[in-house]
Amino acid sequence: RYGYFGRATPEVVRLMFCNVSGCLTDGRIFLSVSGEEMVSINARDTSGIRMLQGEQVEVVLLTSDLDPVAQSLADRLAKRTGCKVMQVGKEPLDDLKPIVEEKKLDWKDVAYMGNDKQDVKCLNLAGMSAVPKDAPVVAINAAKYTCQNCGGMGAIREFAEHILLQKEKAKAQMEQHRIDRCN
Amino acid sequence: RYGYFGRATPEVVRLMFCNVSGCLTDGRIFLSVSGEEMVSINARDTSGIRMLQGEQVEVVLLTSDLDPVAQSLADRLAKRTGCKVMQVGKEPLDDLKPIVEEKKLDWKDVAYMGNDKQDVKCLNLAGMSAVPKDAPVVAINAAKYTCQNCGGMGAIREFAEHILLQKEKAKAQMEQHRIDRCN
Amino acid sequence: RYGYFGRATPEVVRLMFCNVSGCLTDGRIFLSVSGEEMVSINARDTSGIRMLQGEQVEVVLLTSDLDPVAQSLADRLAKRTGCKVMQVGKEPLDDLKPIVEEKKLDWKDVAYMGNDKQDVKCLNLAGMSAVPKDAPVVAINAAKYTCQNCGGMGAIREFAEHILLQKEKAKAQMEQHRIDRCN
Amino acid sequence: RYGYFGRATPEVVRLMFCNVSGCLTDGRIFLSVSGEEMVSINARDTSGIRMLQGEQVEVVLLTSDLDPVAQSLADRLAKRTGCKVMQVGKEPLDDLKPIVEEKKLDWKDVAYMGNDKQDVKCLNLAGMSAVPKDAPVVAINAAKYTCQNCGGMGAIREFAEHILLQKEKAKAQMEQHRIDRCN
Repeated sequence: RYGYFGRATPEVVRLMFCNVSGCLTDGRIFLSVSGEEMVSINARDTSGIRMLQGEQVEVVLLTSDLDPVAQSLADRLAKRTGCKVMQVGKEPLDDLKPIVEEKKLDWKDVAYMGNDKQDVKCLNLAGMSAVPKDAPVVAINAAKYTCQNCGGMGAIREFAEHILLQKEKAKAQMEQHRIDRCN
Repeated sequence: RYGYFGRATPEVVRLMFCNVSGCLTDGRIFLSVSGEEMVSINARDTSGIRMLQGEQVEVVLLTSDLDPVAQSLADRLAKRTGCKVMQVGKEPLDDLKPIVEEKKLDWKDVAYMGNDKQDVKCLNLAGMSAVPKDAPVVAINAAKYTCQNCGGMGAIREFAEHILLQKEKAKAQMEQHRIDRCN
Repeated sequence: RYGYFGRATPEVVRLMFCNVSGCLTDGRIFLSVSGEEMVSINARDTSGIRMLQGEQVEVVLLTSDLDPVAQSLADRLAKRTGCKVMQVGKEPLDDLKPIVEEKKLDWKDVAYMGNDKQDVKCLNLAGMSAVPKDAPVVAINAAKYTCQNCGGMGAIREFAEHILLQKEKAKAQMEQHRIDRCN
Repeated sequence: RYGYFGRATPEVVRLMFCNVSGCLTDGRIFLSVSGEEMVSINARDTSGIRMLQGEQVEVVLLTSDLDPVAQSLADRLAKRTGCKVMQVGKEPLDDLKPIVEEKKLDWKDVAYMGNDKQDVKCLNLAGMSAVPKDAPVVAINAAKYTCQNCGGMGAIREFAEHILLQKEKAKAQMEQHRIDRCN
């Protein structure tokens, strides 16, 4: 090997955006006669989020204008998962672009998990992107990875393992480059 | 092409009736010791309803005498989906006929989604009709379209996409007729 | 045809016993931090129960000592389904025998739907018996009919349709016997 | 047969540890707007636990630091199942070793049911170990038995039947040894 390869920057994800409705939850909202609202999250997914956080990937949860989650519920989700929860509009990209720029990241360093039409632009743009198995076709077509698990049933965990595996591969490759350069 | 084809009226749905129990919900009612009642609805289905409303299709949700939903719950469903919720009797057709006439619509302009025996007449009559995958055989046989998704798990979303696709086809065909007439 | 065939007594079910836990519900109990308990029942199953009641089959729901349902919940289930709810011990047969005798019925006129070991004797004895698809093998082996639906997801509805179909067959057969005797 | 075989000690399980989250429950936590938390357990699993207890196998339920269950909920689970509920840290083995020693048991007399990475050591060490069908690969690889049922949907019941079958086999074998010695 010869030549100058510049600073080897492996494609490692630093930031992940993930929908609450349909990704962290299974998309269901329970409505009660007395006015209560409930959603369910899965321990497998929260453990997937912890795995990412343990490898210095920040995870931000997204709720939508279209499908609002009560603020008190968003707070509880934030506490359970250790993630920031932010509300996005009809085109999430408009809300997320400033954040990616502010953190001085490229979209190739960003992972995105969505599950519907409004996520298509972000799914296309992000370096790594995924949808749960039960997402509509329009979202599946835009995503780089389709989970074998459904939303709220381990899809995030699966994507987290996928991301961390890529990260390890990138590290191994970088190490190999370093060795090659020395020889 | 020659001759006069009259006003080209494509078969486009203007109004959709849809059962709450078993279509918008999965048919389950949660009963609690303290007297609470809960049902679950899916964000995918509410987004399907919004897709229809965005294309000027009015969606009316039906609850049944046989399987009553508490009024407070009906109000919450109405607010979440932006639909009117009305209660129908053992033969929904008797309650819906006056509405269709009042709106000066033909039944071929109406879509109907049901999931059981009492819906058979309406499923037969409506221009477009569907049942969720998990409906009883008697309802499946009457419906023009059987969803691949179960009730409360995306069946409405699937039917909505089906309706809008037909609508586009009808528009394209009408346009083609217009072009043909000009040539 | 000749000879005396006695009174033609078709095998028609007059009484059905059915477990709450695992048959009417899916076996799940939701427990909350504040001490609430919840179970879910399915509109398809309650409609199956109504179909039986409409054909003069009395349906009695059974709760078990082993898996108690709070009294307030049993009352709500009774109200929703129009059935009596009774509590049985480790061997349901001991509790049900007096009832069958009191009603001057044979066990062949009784339908039984159970879902576990303790139901084996009753499943064997009843003229018609069924288990949901997800029952343990020991119960499946004892039952005369295994539903294609799981408990709390339409198993009762399926068994109800099965019972009513048999009833119609028995009626048709009895009618045929009458015609044969007249010729 | 001849010779002295010492005291025949069949491999019979005396103690079983079992995760709450993902084994007794399906891993889901329901969060409500008003601050309520709910989990669901299955009557089939509680009946499996009773089967073990009836054969003198003590069952201890484990909750994790990582996925805490509110104390009031743990108390309710303890009451429903008749099991002690204890909280373990990131490496459950550290918390369980003293208990196994205190009870003067070998790990080969212990059954362990887990469902994730942190359970790997215990799954390896225990004489009998199992994971629900929907466990991550890392846990499936460590377990001696993979259930056909998912967590919260009968996995514990299935493992309980498996354990009791092994116990009967061990007893039958011991009996055979005794007979062989006498002949």
